[in-house]
Amino acid sequence: MEVKVMKNILHANQKLAEENRDFFQSKGIKSVNIMASPGSGKTSVILKLIETFGERAHVAVIEGDIASSIDAEKIEKLGNPVIQINTGGGCHLDANMIKSAVESLDLKDGAILFIENVGNLVCPSSFDLGEGIKMVIASVPEGHDKPYKYTSMFEAADIVVLNKMDLMPYIDFDRDSFYKGIRALNEKAEIIETCCTTGEGIEKLAQWLLTTQVSHIRS
Amino acid sequence: MEVKVMKNILHANQKLAEENRDFFQSKGIKSVNIMASPGSGKTSVILKLIETFGERAHVAVIEGDIASSIDAEKIEKLGNPVIQINTGGGCHLDANMIKSAVESLDLKDGAILFIENVGNLVCPSSFDLGEGIKMVIASVPEGHDKPYKYTSMFEAADIVVLNKMDLMPYIDFDRDSFYKGIRALNEKAEIIETCCTTGEGIEKLAQWLLTTQVSHIRS
Repeated sequence: MEVKVMKNILHANQKLAEENRDFFQSKGIKSVNIMASPGSGKTSVILKLIETFGERAHVAVIEGDIASSIDAEKIEKLGNPVIQINTGGGCHLDANMIKSAVESLDLKDGAILFIENVGNLVCPSSFDLGEGIKMVIASVPEGHDKPYKYTSMFEAADIVVLNKMDLMPYIDFDRDSFYKGIRALNEKAEIIETCCTTGEGIEKLAQWLLTTQVSHIRS
Repeated sequence: MEVKVMKNILHANQKLAEENRDFFQSKGIKSVNIMASPGSGKTSVILKLIETFGERAHVAVIEGDIASSIDAEKIEKLGNPVIQINTGGGCHLDANMIKSAVESLDLKDGAILFIENVGNLVCPSSFDLGEGIKMVIASVPEGHDKPYKYTSMFEAADIVVLNKMDLMPYIDFDRDSFYKGIRALNEKAEIIETCCTTGEGIEKLAQWLLTTQVSHIRS
């Protein structure tokens, strides 16, 4: 019984996700589903990317959180279109939330749309939003064992960002083990190391996002 | 429909949780449900507490993870009774998992039982395990805004541990904001600052766990 209900939910979500995907493709919008633990730096990476893109991209943002609009307020200060979704306890965004949000966002053709999912390394991996790119952010202080414990997240990623590289000297982080853990699950994902305070890796990440063809990633 | 199913699940869980609670009370076992983001230091805190308790407590551990037995192996090296639960994708432990685990654990009367939940600041807060104490661990690099975003977790806590205090000099962490965020939701929770590499606060936390009367916390 429980499995059947779950299947129905996922089936309904999938249908809406495909509609979102069609919409994004028709407008040439590159949508990026950003998934990570709480506090791994999702919003900071988005803020840094907006600054780094400059004139090179129109960027809009959907912010997902259980409660509060702290993150959306930070984006709004930069003048970019942003919408906050509060899930009210829900542990992930779903395709229907994105569909509604997109209807009221000022989305330019060819824009990059960052969708910041609820901070959670588990549930968001089961729900397709219709995104073109799945980005997983892991941060150095979380430790190198995350790919071994949260397998479906790293398995599904098109790109893994290893953030907070400035904390590496203070933490017992085994970089080889982290990379091996990802490669055991996912041979193709790009891996980029970043730091939002020093700016390390942000231009590289910006370049990757600007040049990657979405249709080559998910079809 | 969705709500009804969810209510049934929670009702069935609650019944088993009460059975677990009765069992713990009858044996004088202090059970601690440890909830936190991935990588906030749950296992490290448990390891440090076991070392610090020394002869003062018998400690057994239930380790919850989506996949892997990395954490249980670390506990086993200390010689303490431990069981790993792999939820196989599930984002939280539930009372039935604890009931089964407890049956095969060598649990001494009067022991302290640490239950390390799946790394997730959302879902575990909805599922009573029958525990006597709810401990939430937040770590400095996650940032001071966590209580504002993951409200039900901090609302339910009997004790909040702020871990990785050694990283404070390298991080823009507003301690006042963190404390205010907790107090807006929860007037009574104990808050203890710790660091597992320097040992800061671990004896204080050990003392709190040894002296706190469970029946005074949850009834």
